[in-house]
Amino acid sequence: MKQKQRYFCGVDFGGTSAKIGIVDEQGKLYGTERLAISAGQSYEDIFGMVAHCIRRRSRQLGANLTAIGVGSPGFIDRTEGRVIQGSENLPAFKNRSLVKYLHEDFLLPVFADNDANCAAAGELQFGVGVGYDSFVMITLGAGVGGALVLEGRVFRGTRGLAGEIGHICLDAHGPFCTCGSRGCFEQYANAAAIERSYREKIEKRRGTPGTGARGTGAPGRRGSGRSVSGGKVSDSPANGGSISAESVFLRSRSGDPLAGEVVRETAWHIARVFGSLVNIFNPQACIIGGGISAAGEQLLQPVQEYIADFAWPLPLEGVKIHSAELHNDAGVLGAAAQCLDRLKS
Amino acid sequence: MKQKQRYFCGVDFGGTSAKIGIVDEQGKLYGTERLAISAGQSYEDIFGMVAHCIRRRSRQLGANLTAIGVGSPGFIDRTEGRVIQGSENLPAFKNRSLVKYLHEDFLLPVFADNDANCAAAGELQFGVGVGYDSFVMITLGAGVGGALVLEGRVFRGTRGLAGEIGHICLDAHGPFCTCGSRGCFEQYANAAAIERSYREKIEKRRGTPGTGARGTGAPGRRGSGRSVSGGKVSDSPANGGSISAESVFLRSRSGDPLAGEVVRETAWHIARVFGSLVNIFNPQACIIGGGISAAGEQLLQPVQEYIADFAWPLPLEGVKIHSAELHNDAGVLGAAAQCLDRLKS
Repeated sequence: MKQKQRYFCGVDFGGTSAKIGIVDEQGKLYGTERLAISAGQSYEDIFGMVAHCIRRRSRQLGANLTAIGVGSPGFIDRTEGRVIQGSENLPAFKNRSLVKYLHEDFLLPVFADNDANCAAAGELQFGVGVGYDSFVMITLGAGVGGALVLEGRVFRGTRGLAGEIGHICLDAHGPFCTCGSRGCFEQYANAAAIERSYREKIEKRRGTPGTGARGTGAPGRRGSGRSVSGGKVSDSPANGGSISAESVFLRSRSGDPLAGEVVRETAWHIARVFGSLVNIFNPQACIIGGGISAAGEQLLQPVQEYIADFAWPLPLEGVKIHSAELHNDAGVLGAAAQCLDRLKS
Repeated sequence: MKQKQRYFCGVDFGGTSAKIGIVDEQGKLYGTERLAISAGQSYEDIFGMVAHCIRRRSRQLGANLTAIGVGSPGFIDRTEGRVIQGSENLPAFKNRSLVKYLHEDFLLPVFADNDANCAAAGELQFGVGVGYDSFVMITLGAGVGGALVLEGRVFRGTRGLAGEIGHICLDAHGPFCTCGSRGCFEQYANAAAIERSYREKIEKRRGTPGTGARGTGAPGRRGSGRSVSGGKVSDSPANGGSISAESVFLRSRSGDPLAGEVVRETAWHIARVFGSLVNIFNPQACIIGGGISAAGEQLLQPVQEYIADFAWPLPLEGVKIHSAELHNDAGVLGAAAQCLDRLKS
């Protein structure tokens, strides 16, 4: 007998919106809907709106939901789905359960996890992680998220706080991080770091972007994010003043050697972290997700090259380096995918 | 009905001997026996001798064995118990299974794992790890071993090679490590590093050990392990020339300020690694084992202090730092304990 199709709802909270979609077991997404959220809304307002949307969409689709999965930034408590920390943009969520309201409303299993763990669940169920039993994943964006898939499941740790790969210490005397520690991986590989690094290279070498020529003036101040010596610096893209991390990758592809250096340096930091994690976990794969992972081979190739400097050859044997496969809808797909992961007995 | 007592045999291979003992489920060890092994002996010779000893001891004890556990240095393959790498002292083991001979001989379940994983199994079943569901463990000695206990079991990774915490990169430009990478944790916390650090401090500061006085000569060459500038350096313990890591800890306890600095620096590196691991795993505890862990509070106290610099406060909440509890017989107890760990369904 053919088994009945199961449907899951994914709710992906961002800083200013919730994105909602219904997904089947094969990862087919039946459209998404974005609800705007303002910082002033109450917990009940937000979840009332979300519940209404879920109910309407599942009725339209004629889909009986099996479970609902919620993804959110921050530290999410493992047992109650409480937001313990890190939801500054949605103050109504602080210390509230992301599970309770929807569970009471739908009388269904509801799960919640942070966005990086959801992203890993998404790749594991529907993306490049299908078929792997173990991988480490990082998500590169404004922050650097991380997640571990061990023995076929997302590993969540004692309280659900595991996976903070962005906060491995790379330099105990490095720049202070948002977490309060110094020299965390995040400080070397998030979007701001990529942008700053490119801007500084341009300013300090005094060349035109794309030439890589070394200038003659005094070097700019290190770590200031903006040179203050030797004249005015404009914000025009011509000197990299307001260049996004994505466009640094674009410029590298177009042959800009300074952008190329930044990409390789970013890859080097990623390779260092992956190398240590290969030694610790002996995984089958390392996956790069988040907006920056769209760079694809441009980033994977140097990571693949540099990782040999940091991993023991034996556990590195056969380890694959991938970009995430779920792109625009990774948040909703991942939030839904965690249901499949967590319903495993 | 009272359940029948189960007995396990632990076989702990070192570089020149095998230590064998029978252990009950409560961790009571019924004596141990040490068999000398020479590098020239064949696989069959070694295991024939080991099997004979196991048979004799279990008969004397009237104990029906439930399983046999083998511990060994090196990378041990997860499925077949093969020594893939790292048994240079026992060339007969290279690429041979540590499980096969004993299994064929006794027709019992036989398990094999590397010594650090066994040490963690020992603490989990019989030591300071009892009652914990998750912890990270390092063993400090000639090398730095590591192991992860996750969700109540030793985590072994895809091929059984997981846990190489000693090979987390602390400085990508640091000294080359035996593994081929640079700046591994092992290079900052093994016995040789502790000894060298103490020796260099004494030589470079030119004071009498215990005074910490700074000398007037040129500083010694960094990383050479021996100062070559400014006169002859003898190997007498008076200037630290042949001081063991253990005695550096002893000297620190007796108030030697240079030894105290070395202990604190060692603790700082350990805290850095534990801090990153707390962020990655969200464990309940961090355990320090190996010979150096006998230092106890002397090492734990500064690790406890420094770890806050490296871990996110939330996952660090409630994390305990312990010394291992199993000392002299940790190898045999751990080798036997892995049977309990691996027989869990």
